[in-house]
Amino acid sequence: MTLKELAVAIGAEVVGDGSIEIESVNTLDAAGPGEISFLANVRYNKQLETTGASAVIVAPNVRAGGIALLRHKNPYYAFSQAVVKLHGYRKQHQSGIHPRANIDPVATIGENTIVYPGVYVGPRTKIGRDCILYPNVVIYEDCIIGDRVIIHANASIGQDGYGFAPAKNAGGEVIHHKIPQIGNVVIEDDVEIGANATVDRAALGSTIIGKGSKLGDLVTVGHNARLGPGCLLVPQVGISGSTTLGHHVTMGGQSAVAGHLKIGNGVSIAGQAGVIEDAEDNTILIGAPAMPGSQARRVYAIFRNLPELVARVKKLEEGGSASAEAEPTAEA
Amino acid sequence: MTLKELAVAIGAEVVGDGSIEIESVNTLDAAGPGEISFLANVRYNKQLETTGASAVIVAPNVRAGGIALLRHKNPYYAFSQAVVKLHGYRKQHQSGIHPRANIDPVATIGENTIVYPGVYVGPRTKIGRDCILYPNVVIYEDCIIGDRVIIHANASIGQDGYGFAPAKNAGGEVIHHKIPQIGNVVIEDDVEIGANATVDRAALGSTIIGKGSKLGDLVTVGHNARLGPGCLLVPQVGISGSTTLGHHVTMGGQSAVAGHLKIGNGVSIAGQAGVIEDAEDNTILIGAPAMPGSQARRVYAIFRNLPELVARVKKLEEGGSASAEAEPTAEA
Amino acid sequence: MTLKELAVAIGAEVVGDGSIEIESVNTLDAAGPGEISFLANVRYNKQLETTGASAVIVAPNVRAGGIALLRHKNPYYAFSQAVVKLHGYRKQHQSGIHPRANIDPVATIGENTIVYPGVYVGPRTKIGRDCILYPNVVIYEDCIIGDRVIIHANASIGQDGYGFAPAKNAGGEVIHHKIPQIGNVVIEDDVEIGANATVDRAALGSTIIGKGSKLGDLVTVGHNARLGPGCLLVPQVGISGSTTLGHHVTMGGQSAVAGHLKIGNGVSIAGQAGVIEDAEDNTILIGAPAMPGSQARRVYAIFRNLPELVARVKKLEEGGSASAEAEPTAEA
Repeated sequence: MTLKELAVAIGAEVVGDGSIEIESVNTLDAAGPGEISFLANVRYNKQLETTGASAVIVAPNVRAGGIALLRHKNPYYAFSQAVVKLHGYRKQHQSGIHPRANIDPVATIGENTIVYPGVYVGPRTKIGRDCILYPNVVIYEDCIIGDRVIIHANASIGQDGYGFAPAKNAGGEVIHHKIPQIGNVVIEDDVEIGANATVDRAALGSTIIGKGSKLGDLVTVGHNARLGPGCLLVPQVGISGSTTLGHHVTMGGQSAVAGHLKIGNGVSIAGQAGVIEDAEDNTILIGAPAMPGSQARRVYAIFRNLPELVARVKKLEEGGSASAEAEPTAEA
Repeated sequence: MTLKELAVAIGAEVVGDGSIEIESVNTLDAAGPGEISFLANVRYNKQLETTGASAVIVAPNVRAGGIALLRHKNPYYAFSQAVVKLHGYRKQHQSGIHPRANIDPVATIGENTIVYPGVYVGPRTKIGRDCILYPNVVIYEDCIIGDRVIIHANASIGQDGYGFAPAKNAGGEVIHHKIPQIGNVVIEDDVEIGANATVDRAALGSTIIGKGSKLGDLVTVGHNARLGPGCLLVPQVGISGSTTLGHHVTMGGQSAVAGHLKIGNGVSIAGQAGVIEDAEDNTILIGAPAMPGSQARRVYAIFRNLPELVARVKKLEEGGSASAEAEPTAEA
Repeated sequence: MTLKELAVAIGAEVVGDGSIEIESVNTLDAAGPGEISFLANVRYNKQLETTGASAVIVAPNVRAGGIALLRHKNPYYAFSQAVVKLHGYRKQHQSGIHPRANIDPVATIGENTIVYPGVYVGPRTKIGRDCILYPNVVIYEDCIIGDRVIIHANASIGQDGYGFAPAKNAGGEVIHHKIPQIGNVVIEDDVEIGANATVDRAALGSTIIGKGSKLGDLVTVGHNARLGPGCLLVPQVGISGSTTLGHHVTMGGQSAVAGHLKIGNGVSIAGQAGVIEDAEDNTILIGAPAMPGSQARRVYAIFRNLPELVARVKKLEEGGSASAEAEPTAEA
């Protein structure tokens, strides 16, 4: 495919020689002749000068001397389309339901859905069409999975939520009594769920993963949690029970939201953050416990420089006054 | 079932019309006619006025105008019993050992235990009676599982603990030599283990999960750790090797205890806390590193207001004295 | 085996009666007659006086009155060798490929490799010799696994990395478009991977786990990450995409490294630390966000004592001067 043809296919503008042959995609540092790469982060701008790529997909304002460019207002998206054009998605290695999958007779599996060996689907669960269930995925009974849903290996969907009622027995010992978890899980269309992730069934009603949301590996979603559409939860995120997320909430690695909270639309939660309060739409939350981003940046900048703050206090105690030391600045 | 009959069945006192028919349970905000809900948290008191439920299970001191109540000293437990009466537990979809489970010929499985497809049980492992092993659970050899134990999908029990001894080879390079893990895992009666959780076998002796303890999804317990009875570990908790927990220890999401520590009875560890010291009975631990609760609350209240503390110091440096600003107050 | 014979076998020096019979190994507090234990941590020195062991493996400088010793410069390694001599590794309960493993016809499995039931290996994946794949391990297509690699139950290798390109659709809604993940995973020789751990395939090129690295349970490694040889990642660690770790990096439980970072050789990262910057060789990193160890120890010591710092500032505001209170000291 020539660079020009690729440009047309992905809606980009050619800068330089459009007749170059492009055979594959690669990263800026690993690409060689015949390969196209992309630059979506100014942090890697310098690699434009050293890359061996024949062409690079860039934002409209980027300039480069000796290398052909494809300009696109969304270079990362344009690159993803280039990967699809040049390589396609990984080919599935079977079609239909593998004979070693364990599908309950009263479960239903939609057209073109691929079910790998070792998958378990319980009674009355409905799987939509064009889904992929990778090996050893387990989906308990009565769940509803939409169309084009991808669930990676060893993920577990629909197991009992964590619900126990403590009560003392005759001997005065506290016993944790299991609360029946009689709800289900609803996974809407176009969701992707990572390997070894877990989504618990609701105690009553449904745990819901909204349309087009993407859960990373080892993510856990508690009973009766509800995620709006377009949420991005990267690996090891934890959502506690009965919490609701609006649409397009993004959560960094190992971050968590406590139970029974309401997180607004477009909220962005940093890695390892611990959210323990409701959050308004579009807030940025950082830290544990999580604070609004601007506050968190100031707090953590001071935090890292606490020894200097102590030194200033000590100097004051010793009779000193205005310090020559600069305020710590936010740099984290 | 009438409200009166339900009250008798769960040991509650009727306030209002006991002849109402109750068919099912639901949450306060979703319940409609014929449904009973519960109120265990004062935070939701207001919903008593707006709920569509026909009746609500409440604590003895709660009053409400136009709605029938069932008073019980432990409303959450009473509600869990109401769910059992009205709905029962989810029905198991098979009995006995599924032909596609992989049970070693010298493993033993107790009476009425249900083993779903894809489960692996290694040699000499003993499973008690009335257990449920959900699909794709793996239990290595020589482990002992008590009665009425529930293990959810894709959990792994008895794999090697994380034990490696570093030593330099002839070339001066450090090699990590695997230490044989020749112990086992003992899971006592009435334990429930969440999906994709992992419990490592002991290097020597046993890793022990005490009677009636409940582990959430993605919890990990290291080799030679010992949990007392009645512990509650919610999802993504980590227990390092050789640490012991007393009875009725509770741990919030993503919290962890370092290795070789002794955590007393009734200790309560907050979400994301990182415990790096032994803990006395009944202490509350918050934060990373974890501190006693009262200290942590003061520390984190100041932490969130560090910019104000810096402003106060700056004012002092500039010659100011007593500040008009209030002390930060604990509100987290 | 006599103590003398064991000493010769593991290269240790006998102090005391070499004719004692040693039958097994045990911990200092549980050992009895005929058992040998070890002392690698000064913290447990006192147990030398109370242990029931017949002998203890210790460092060269350790002395003890009434008990036989084996002195070795690396007591933990010597002990691991003693376990191997006296007990051996756990015996594998099958050989070759179990008939209920699901191996693609165009995958290749090396000599003496053991594949337990429920394992899935995708097309063109190559597994080396002397490996062990425990039950229900899933390895996607096109991956390369070295020799003597051990992968524990329910681990997932080679699933798609977390890659989505956001773009607005005609209605102005942001849609996350899946980016093909066309790379693979390369696991070098002598690696061990814990239960329910996940290693994502690269978007382009390879995700690499270096020779002799050991990953604990529930560890996740993102797409295009590259770990050098000899790394130790204990349970629940998270490595984000495109990050590189040098050789012999160690990471404590629940610690994480953000994406696109370069972590040097021999870096040591504490439990729950959150690394958000590149790290030079041999640095120690503690805290979230992670700081160099010496800074972190000072910062956290002050952090825990923030109420005292506030009291000092208040006293200054009230006209007080030099405080009698001591500086908080690092003790965490």
